[in-house]
Amino acid sequence: MNKECNITKSPQLKMWQWITIASLTILSHRINSQTFEKAPPALTIASQGSFAVGGKIVTNSEGKLFHGDHAYVTYQVPVNSRKYPLIFVHGIGQFSKTWETTPDGREGFQNIFLRRNFSVYLVDQPRRGNAGRSTLTDTIRPEFTEEFWFNRFRLGVWPSYFKGVQFSHDKNALDQFFRQMTPDTGPSDFEVYTDAYAALAEKIGPAILITHSMGGPIGWQTHLKTSKIKGIVSYEPGGYSLFRKVKDLYRPIQKHGQLR
Amino acid sequence: MNKECNITKSPQLKMWQWITIASLTILSHRINSQTFEKAPPALTIASQGSFAVGGKIVTNSEGKLFHGDHAYVTYQVPVNSRKYPLIFVHGIGQFSKTWETTPDGREGFQNIFLRRNFSVYLVDQPRRGNAGRSTLTDTIRPEFTEEFWFNRFRLGVWPSYFKGVQFSHDKNALDQFFRQMTPDTGPSDFEVYTDAYAALAEKIGPAILITHSMGGPIGWQTHLKTSKIKGIVSYEPGGYSLFRKVKDLYRPIQKHGQLR
Repeated sequence: MNKECNITKSPQLKMWQWITIASLTILSHRINSQTFEKAPPALTIASQGSFAVGGKIVTNSEGKLFHGDHAYVTYQVPVNSRKYPLIFVHGIGQFSKTWETTPDGREGFQNIFLRRNFSVYLVDQPRRGNAGRSTLTDTIRPEFTEEFWFNRFRLGVWPSYFKGVQFSHDKNALDQFFRQMTPDTGPSDFEVYTDAYAALAEKIGPAILITHSMGGPIGWQTHLKTSKIKGIVSYEPGGYSLFRKVKDLYRPIQKHGQLR
Repeated sequence: MNKECNITKSPQLKMWQWITIASLTILSHRINSQTFEKAPPALTIASQGSFAVGGKIVTNSEGKLFHGDHAYVTYQVPVNSRKYPLIFVHGIGQFSKTWETTPDGREGFQNIFLRRNFSVYLVDQPRRGNAGRSTLTDTIRPEFTEEFWFNRFRLGVWPSYFKGVQFSHDKNALDQFFRQMTPDTGPSDFEVYTDAYAALAEKIGPAILITHSMGGPIGWQTHLKTSKIKGIVSYEPGGYSLFRKVKDLYRPIQKHGQLR
């Protein structure tokens, strides 16, 4: 039996094929933005701003208050916006930056979807980034794990890039990539995260979640806490088991078809 | 001698008069934005995005890397932008949010100055908010100091508002106000802050700094590290002695006159 032939049918190769397809899907969106790179048309924004949403108020033994565990949201509504806004749910270690300018300076999902007339809500989940006000104590240390993240985000095997990988090999791009991570400012807690995302959906009304990586299960679990989620698009969802009980799947999500 | 008359001439009263004038100056800008509240015209943005700037790369005993101590910047350039962009420098405890939507939901300086055709650069200083990746370890605890900040920002004497204070008495506004603070994720270090702001000015070219509170001395000390600062506007500057040596004042800043 031909050994090479055997390899091409292995589960490992299937996994790599899946990863390649997923990566290409994302990259194709990013490449689309390149067509605007030289002279992108102006964005026409009907309204923009920011707010905190959700969270808790805790009290100490002296009766003094502390507001924390909210999400922090910046939003932009383009002129002639579509019916459903997009809520962007970042993954592990990153923050709203995931969806903004790419490490090599091209437009990210924020601008790409504004140009397609979607209202865009960029979120920092509770205890991350600009939503750093945690109700629980934590210690933050510099974690020397950048080699791990280089590999985990499939740029290559540190310090070499994968042959043909479309991530820029410019060293400034890698510098920006590492700096788009920011530490948790409190213990990880999916209930806290999903409470805040559900509060956002309740505040702004029916919306579509766009999730990345650890944001995947956060998005699906948010859907269980509010009736306002009209669709979920998950890029590279991961983290842990999706639904704890099959009966949790009580609210089907309609297929919305291709993005136009 | 009339005791009341005596009081009206006291240094304490003069201080309060000064504080009142300073507060009213800021509030007058905010009230201006109210005229747009019902139907603000669309913003036309030529470009927008985000990036990390400045910072360090540190190495551990195993030779592994950590990128940190950068500032995080979001920017918007309006169509027909003016010559000099504005770099907004937040104060103690807050972050870029200082300049965005007000606690009661009106447009903040970000939108007000975009509407006046200024390019706007909103910064999270190193070890704060979305620039949370600190090269030094720190522990973050919920600080039950909200009464202090209520007083310090001169909303009133907790829990009462000053008579006639223009800060909204809506409880949601106060909730938003407390949540626009976020903790330091590393030790306070003015050299680290000013290095990052200077790196930003070097990257984008000649600019004007708009500073608030503790951002005051940060702005002036940034000016000593780069020739790119063309003007500094400081709201309620404070913190500590401005210039450590008089000879540091070697680069005079021109008066630019009234904003038109």
